[in-house]
Amino acid sequence: MRIAIDAMGGDHAPESTVLGAMKAVSEMKDLHITLVGNESEIKKYASEHDRIHILHTNEVITAEDEPVRAVRRKKQSSLVLAANEVKQGKADACISAGNTGALMSAGLFVVGRIKGIERPALSPTLPTLDGQGFLFLDVGANVDAKPNHLLQYAIMGSIYSEKVRGLSQPKVGLLNVGTEDGKGPELTKKTFQLLQEAPINFIGNVEARDMLDHVADVIVTDGFTGNVALKTIEGTAGSIFAMLKQAFTSSTKSKLAAGMLKKDLKALKTKLDYSEYGGAGLFGLQAPVIKAHGSSDQRAIANAIKQARYMAENQIAETIQSTIESLHVAKGEDE
Amino acid sequence: MRIAIDAMGGDHAPESTVLGAMKAVSEMKDLHITLVGNESEIKKYASEHDRIHILHTNEVITAEDEPVRAVRRKKQSSLVLAANEVKQGKADACISAGNTGALMSAGLFVVGRIKGIERPALSPTLPTLDGQGFLFLDVGANVDAKPNHLLQYAIMGSIYSEKVRGLSQPKVGLLNVGTEDGKGPELTKKTFQLLQEAPINFIGNVEARDMLDHVADVIVTDGFTGNVALKTIEGTAGSIFAMLKQAFTSSTKSKLAAGMLKKDLKALKTKLDYSEYGGAGLFGLQAPVIKAHGSSDQRAIANAIKQARYMAENQIAETIQSTIESLHVAKGEDE
Repeated sequence: MRIAIDAMGGDHAPESTVLGAMKAVSEMKDLHITLVGNESEIKKYASEHDRIHILHTNEVITAEDEPVRAVRRKKQSSLVLAANEVKQGKADACISAGNTGALMSAGLFVVGRIKGIERPALSPTLPTLDGQGFLFLDVGANVDAKPNHLLQYAIMGSIYSEKVRGLSQPKVGLLNVGTEDGKGPELTKKTFQLLQEAPINFIGNVEARDMLDHVADVIVTDGFTGNVALKTIEGTAGSIFAMLKQAFTSSTKSKLAAGMLKKDLKALKTKLDYSEYGGAGLFGLQAPVIKAHGSSDQRAIANAIKQARYMAENQIAETIQSTIESLHVAKGEDE
Repeated sequence: MRIAIDAMGGDHAPESTVLGAMKAVSEMKDLHITLVGNESEIKKYASEHDRIHILHTNEVITAEDEPVRAVRRKKQSSLVLAANEVKQGKADACISAGNTGALMSAGLFVVGRIKGIERPALSPTLPTLDGQGFLFLDVGANVDAKPNHLLQYAIMGSIYSEKVRGLSQPKVGLLNVGTEDGKGPELTKKTFQLLQEAPINFIGNVEARDMLDHVADVIVTDGFTGNVALKTIEGTAGSIFAMLKQAFTSSTKSKLAAGMLKKDLKALKTKLDYSEYGGAGLFGLQAPVIKAHGSSDQRAIANAIKQARYMAENQIAETIQSTIESLHVAKGEDE
């Protein structure tokens, strides 16, 4: 098993990526990692290890780069070269904590789609109150989604939850404005019908206010709505914690009490920290491509590596391909 | 000035609606209120008042009723009769804390749209960190929105913010998946162009994670996305408070500390309480129709009454109509 990592991507790179890789190889004895990026920078943090390999390059894609253009022009960037390792069969999966759009483009243009999948989906696992989490897709790979795309997201999400997260018959919900059948715009009405006939455990429409209560294991939506919902969760949580901080430092008494609660508050933050569940998989590609959060620390990177490894080991891409093919065969469509 | 209130709508009705009405008439000396609902129930909470009138009916629309059907069949319901008061010119505005869909239907079919407005928009004011709040529309009146609908929302929201909230040149943002121009699906791309030419202070695309930071005074989106975003805010805030409660009662020490922070935590909850800003206006109708939150207490009802009053007094409907007409004239369209 070999995983290629864009060592230069992310707010804390290359320290976080290199230390995360070191942590992962120490925990998984058959794991090889290729760190792609500036060799001297990488070596500042990497100790010699026979299963850590460095592929040197000076070029990087930054957060400000326009994604599609960057992938086309910066062919020697650490992000594109990491994807290239997968394309050339030198790695089984790749990971970046860098420019999300660029990783999606590299996934699509370099790694390539699974035959029969119309659009890949960006799929993070978000935290729930009970600590189990749910898979949410798509959060922005495809902002003009059609019902058939959402059907494919549901199938891919279900396969991932079963094979990687070990859930039996994962509950799949459709994000909607109400729980009753027949709710919502044309997109969700048509999707609802497709999901009822799909080989998944479809539980119907779910509402946004119930997502963090673990109302479903997989929640499917279009990339525009998913992106807005994801960023609304982040924004709301961030705002509340900012207000808590303000409130808890408003007086000496508050400061004292907040000090006593420090451990509880930290536990709370950890519970909401979705890097616990790894990164966001870009589902529908020929090999696992994982987007780790931009603010990933070494632990988050190590989690993303574990996730990529499980995805490759459990042949997620192959299972998605054969499931999609069997659907087409069942429907008598020619591919 | 006379406002009709569906006295039976809401989780705490008729106590909340009646006491809210009493509070409002005591504060506004020219205000008359018609409480529509079961007279004997209402009289349990209402003391005699020469500016509080009761319109008796036994029929009610419940939360479980299918909205459109309920409005058509339950013509003697408190909600429909309150809207009827407006239609017949006996009231200047109406309010309900009951079934949101039914109020939207009653607004559309009984009160009626402003000429030139294609779709009404449900428009709550949501809290921001700085305590100023922002107007968010549409949150679900119209789940299959077109660019022109969003243009009209932006104009209506801007007029409301100027006339009722007293903001000069309110900043109008378009909810999108990134802040750069040209982001998002076809809907937002086309809307962006329309907003650039509209008679508003358009500041461009805004991201969901910045909403509660008061990035704009008015944020425009389609009803599906708006509904999901609103319920995501509610769900995330609710989950975090549930976790805080759990954490703060986990040990004797935590309980003690939390007790010391009680006032701060309460202040925080108040800051997030959007009934402070009144209810959600259903913009685009011939008179103010306000949806108060289902869980409204008397204070929230009184705030919604104030809001309806300001809307009527400042002739929001008339201003919207003349602005929309002038746009049509400017474009040489016939209406």
